[in-house]
Amino acid sequence: MFKKIQSLLIGKALKTNELAEEKFSVLWGLPILSSDAISSVAYASEEILLVLIPILGMRAYGSMIEIAIAITVLLGIIVFSYRQIIDNFPHGGGSYIVASENIGKLPGLVAASSLIIDYLLTVAVSTCAGAAAITSAIPALLPYQPLIAIFVIGLITLGNLRGIRDSSKLFGIPTYLFILSIIIMIVTGVFKVLVLKETPEQLYVVPQAAGDLTLLLFLKAFSSGCTALTGIEAVSDGIPNFKNPAQKNAKIVLGTLACIVFTIFGGISYLSTMYKAVPGQDITVIAQIAIQVFGQNSLMFFIVQATTAIILTLAANTAFSDLPLLLSILAKDGYVPRQLGKRGTRLSFSNGIVLLFLVSSLLVYIADGSTHMLLSLYAVGVFISFTLSQFGMFRKWTKSKEGHWRHKAFINGLGAAVTAATCIIIGVEKFKHGAWIVLVCIPILVTGMLRVRRHYTKVRENLKIETGLESLIVREAITKHVIVPVQTINKSFIKSLNCALTLGENIEVYHVSTDEEVTKKLIEKYNKLGIAAQLVIENAPYRNVNEKLLAYVEEKHKQLKKHEVITIVMPQFIIHKWWHQTLHNQTSILLRRSILKMRNVVIVTVPYIINE
Amino acid sequence: MFKKIQSLLIGKALKTNELAEEKFSVLWGLPILSSDAISSVAYASEEILLVLIPILGMRAYGSMIEIAIAITVLLGIIVFSYRQIIDNFPHGGGSYIVASENIGKLPGLVAASSLIIDYLLTVAVSTCAGAAAITSAIPALLPYQPLIAIFVIGLITLGNLRGIRDSSKLFGIPTYLFILSIIIMIVTGVFKVLVLKETPEQLYVVPQAAGDLTLLLFLKAFSSGCTALTGIEAVSDGIPNFKNPAQKNAKIVLGTLACIVFTIFGGISYLSTMYKAVPGQDITVIAQIAIQVFGQNSLMFFIVQATTAIILTLAANTAFSDLPLLLSILAKDGYVPRQLGKRGTRLSFSNGIVLLFLVSSLLVYIADGSTHMLLSLYAVGVFISFTLSQFGMFRKWTKSKEGHWRHKAFINGLGAAVTAATCIIIGVEKFKHGAWIVLVCIPILVTGMLRVRRHYTKVRENLKIETGLESLIVREAITKHVIVPVQTINKSFIKSLNCALTLGENIEVYHVSTDEEVTKKLIEKYNKLGIAAQLVIENAPYRNVNEKLLAYVEEKHKQLKKHEVITIVMPQFIIHKWWHQTLHNQTSILLRRSILKMRNVVIVTVPYIINE
Repeated sequence: MFKKIQSLLIGKALKTNELAEEKFSVLWGLPILSSDAISSVAYASEEILLVLIPILGMRAYGSMIEIAIAITVLLGIIVFSYRQIIDNFPHGGGSYIVASENIGKLPGLVAASSLIIDYLLTVAVSTCAGAAAITSAIPALLPYQPLIAIFVIGLITLGNLRGIRDSSKLFGIPTYLFILSIIIMIVTGVFKVLVLKETPEQLYVVPQAAGDLTLLLFLKAFSSGCTALTGIEAVSDGIPNFKNPAQKNAKIVLGTLACIVFTIFGGISYLSTMYKAVPGQDITVIAQIAIQVFGQNSLMFFIVQATTAIILTLAANTAFSDLPLLLSILAKDGYVPRQLGKRGTRLSFSNGIVLLFLVSSLLVYIADGSTHMLLSLYAVGVFISFTLSQFGMFRKWTKSKEGHWRHKAFINGLGAAVTAATCIIIGVEKFKHGAWIVLVCIPILVTGMLRVRRHYTKVRENLKIETGLESLIVREAITKHVIVPVQTINKSFIKSLNCALTLGENIEVYHVSTDEEVTKKLIEKYNKLGIAAQLVIENAPYRNVNEKLLAYVEEKHKQLKKHEVITIVMPQFIIHKWWHQTLHNQTSILLRRSILKMRNVVIVTVPYIINE
Repeated sequence: MFKKIQSLLIGKALKTNELAEEKFSVLWGLPILSSDAISSVAYASEEILLVLIPILGMRAYGSMIEIAIAITVLLGIIVFSYRQIIDNFPHGGGSYIVASENIGKLPGLVAASSLIIDYLLTVAVSTCAGAAAITSAIPALLPYQPLIAIFVIGLITLGNLRGIRDSSKLFGIPTYLFILSIIIMIVTGVFKVLVLKETPEQLYVVPQAAGDLTLLLFLKAFSSGCTALTGIEAVSDGIPNFKNPAQKNAKIVLGTLACIVFTIFGGISYLSTMYKAVPGQDITVIAQIAIQVFGQNSLMFFIVQATTAIILTLAANTAFSDLPLLLSILAKDGYVPRQLGKRGTRLSFSNGIVLLFLVSSLLVYIADGSTHMLLSLYAVGVFISFTLSQFGMFRKWTKSKEGHWRHKAFINGLGAAVTAATCIIIGVEKFKHGAWIVLVCIPILVTGMLRVRRHYTKVRENLKIETGLESLIVREAITKHVIVPVQTINKSFIKSLNCALTLGENIEVYHVSTDEEVTKKLIEKYNKLGIAAQLVIENAPYRNVNEKLLAYVEEKHKQLKKHEVITIVMPQFIIHKWWHQTLHNQTSILLRRSILKMRNVVIVTVPYIINE
């Protein structure tokens, strides 16, 4: 039944050797890995204006362009830096691998934690912003914004559980539609003002200026706008998912991505200046521009809104394709539970996908669907991992000193310096708005990962065989002690007893008496069985039957000779209806756990199926 | 640790043969079993006035007395009826036993269900009313009423987990204090008006009359007042808890109880008429009278409020002493889970007590601490069980026709007729206010109990041994098939293998391959072991290791000859920290469950303790 639903929702199971077929080309890889970066323009311009307008009023639009230029320069530096990473790390993993290989284990884990947080936030932020695009077009849906976001996360989860290739087809077309419609909007918008000399009608009143542009304000706006650069690292993380030649394809995608972000972010920032969009209203900045360019309720307005909504929700998909991959790499290194490293029936890392679904839905629920609140937490993590990976590359060149190392070290060093500076700006500016949460979570995650690793190492050490294999096998005959607990002589007990009789020569049937009458009858019946096993009876005036048994076994356990083992034979009722479980005593479960804490005791479970 | 807290909270464990000492005398039995009945006067008068005043205004106080007289007559009839039950059913159990022995299984279960609902409501109603008495004295606590009630239920639960005798001491004195302080209030109040000829100052304005006294209104008020009679059956249910002579002592308690209820209910009804108390205000009717008689903020006012609060909360204790007893009787008959029939470390029926705590707290939470809402559900159940037990007694006499059977049948017949009539009045009057919930719950409970019983009967039938005991023991030698699953050859596997080698001659080590390299290494290592067990390897291209193993065992299971058994040896990691559990694959738990569904398979669990 469960199997049927599963195969209906996520498709039929795939064999391990079908893995190679599930990789993507440049054409379909671009939308999967770049939707995060491309879609962030949908809120980046808005976030910049949100900082500037309350202070500068009309003058904000001038500063807007300066900040947009600063951000695109930063974009260029980061892209060049990342090209060198793609060249040198063909197996993906991004910052985590670069930082841990070149700087150390701890910086690697810090980068990994930042990335994990970043991916979780990507899903939450993008789906919330997508929901905002929907409610901008259909204001009646405003109260259901968080619900819409969570529903969308659910859909993406299903898509990803189906596997990589399937999802690339599902998500590719809308990404290209979005790029196309935004470019049409930019061209039309610019054409109307510059060529047709139309004066755009303002939708909202721009507030009066309340102050001047200070360095602080500039940095604040800059740090808000840096969200436009999130998602770039996704390409270098995702190299193993590309068709061969994977590295070349990844670099083509990265380059194309940068051009697209440059065009769209620049274009939208320019348009918002030209059309005097006012952020923080019920409808988004992009929606305002679309209304001004194409007219309220025009077809193109709805197309822009629809594709924005789709690409934003698809941006979440970037995280769904990359976080499970990162987690599987961490799982291989033993830093996260091993289950996260297993491929599911459709070859995707299903446990990681489900985990991402749960945590990001929770984030949306907590933030109540508000993009702005989540964005304050967002960029810090991204820039920490940027910095660590660039710095890792810098260290790599300065250590190896091979080939054109000076040139390469300069590029990555510049990248590291610029992203580190940005990271500090964002950390300070956004600290009290939520960045502190991220700065608290990173050490917690790192500690957690170290402890998981320590546990796995300990288990591995424990299990490792050092001496010769043959010498571990016990070859001499040993006495076996068998204990069969009994409360009533019934068919279930007889079945266990029959099993015990084949196990060893030293069998004891152990009874705890809480009622003299019952015990008397039991002894009578037992004697009729005519078997060589001894009946041991203990009294329990305090009715603590299980404690008595446990104490008895513990006592025997102490007296065991080398290699000897106590075998306890216990029946277990197998019941078909779940609620029937509540009708039987569950103390045997606790008893099992206590017994198994003794080293040389084994439990034989004899099923007794009711309806036999 | 848990043990220590437990013994601190509920006292040291008691032996089974200490049971006799835990019974109570007339003096301490009265408060335990009668606080429910006595305390109900605290809300009964208020409920009557609540019906009458909005319609009749001032004239309500005249009708009040008539209704109070009708209810006390009903009280007399019920008490006489119950004296005969105590005479004939020395082992307690009340309505359930009387009805099932004399009418039939189904009426017995209906009575039991009514009683269960009644006891649950007793706890909820009494603690809410107790909380209301507290908030009448200290209005600042008004918003915390439900919280106070739940806290009090918790205290009572702890008291009862300590055991019967201890709780009788804990709860006896306040009951007597309540009786005393109410009698002082009645005497003082009557003396002031009748002897000193004082005219009491009215606290609230009595509303204008809006209609006349109709039969319908009279019945409505009567049905509301019948809550005063709840709790009387507790004495006959609790006979086994009395010291010998138990029946005589129970009858003395019943008689005393009737006198006390008569005095207090009559007295308060009379006083509320005299002092023109107005119900439905922020403070209760008893509080109003206490203020008028003793003055606001007088010591006696606070004593009346405090003892009212205490006795009301203690009334809940009646249910805590009786419901677990009833459940244990039902458990013995197999109608409820067997765990409810077991005495805990302190000889009280701890599971029943904890269950009562949980459900009644939930009721208080749902009703948000409102007594009035719960009272509408209350009396129906009580009167259904009254009727069934009286009718059961009537049937007993008419069937046996021994001794003065006509006289006895008349008393119980009258009781049955009167309580049945009352039951119908209450059911109809309160139907849409909540009585329907009770009428829906009773058949659900009855069905549930029948199904539980059916399950237990089936299990018993399954386990029963019909043929000769000796013939069930397998005496011929049989081939034993042992399977040891392996993923990696490590210490844990070696331990399991050593165990398997002692179990039988036909041993298979079973490996599911998902990775050729790993399997190749495994085969090499295995060959070094030099043992006679065969290594079986299967490929799993879909990575479904557990499914493969299960299918293999199922196939073997089909080929078993008579008496043959497959033994599967599985290691289990024993881990100390709970969170480490999440780091290991939990699919083995599911695998165990699936394997144990096969009749002739047993599982040997070999513990492997990490840190060994």
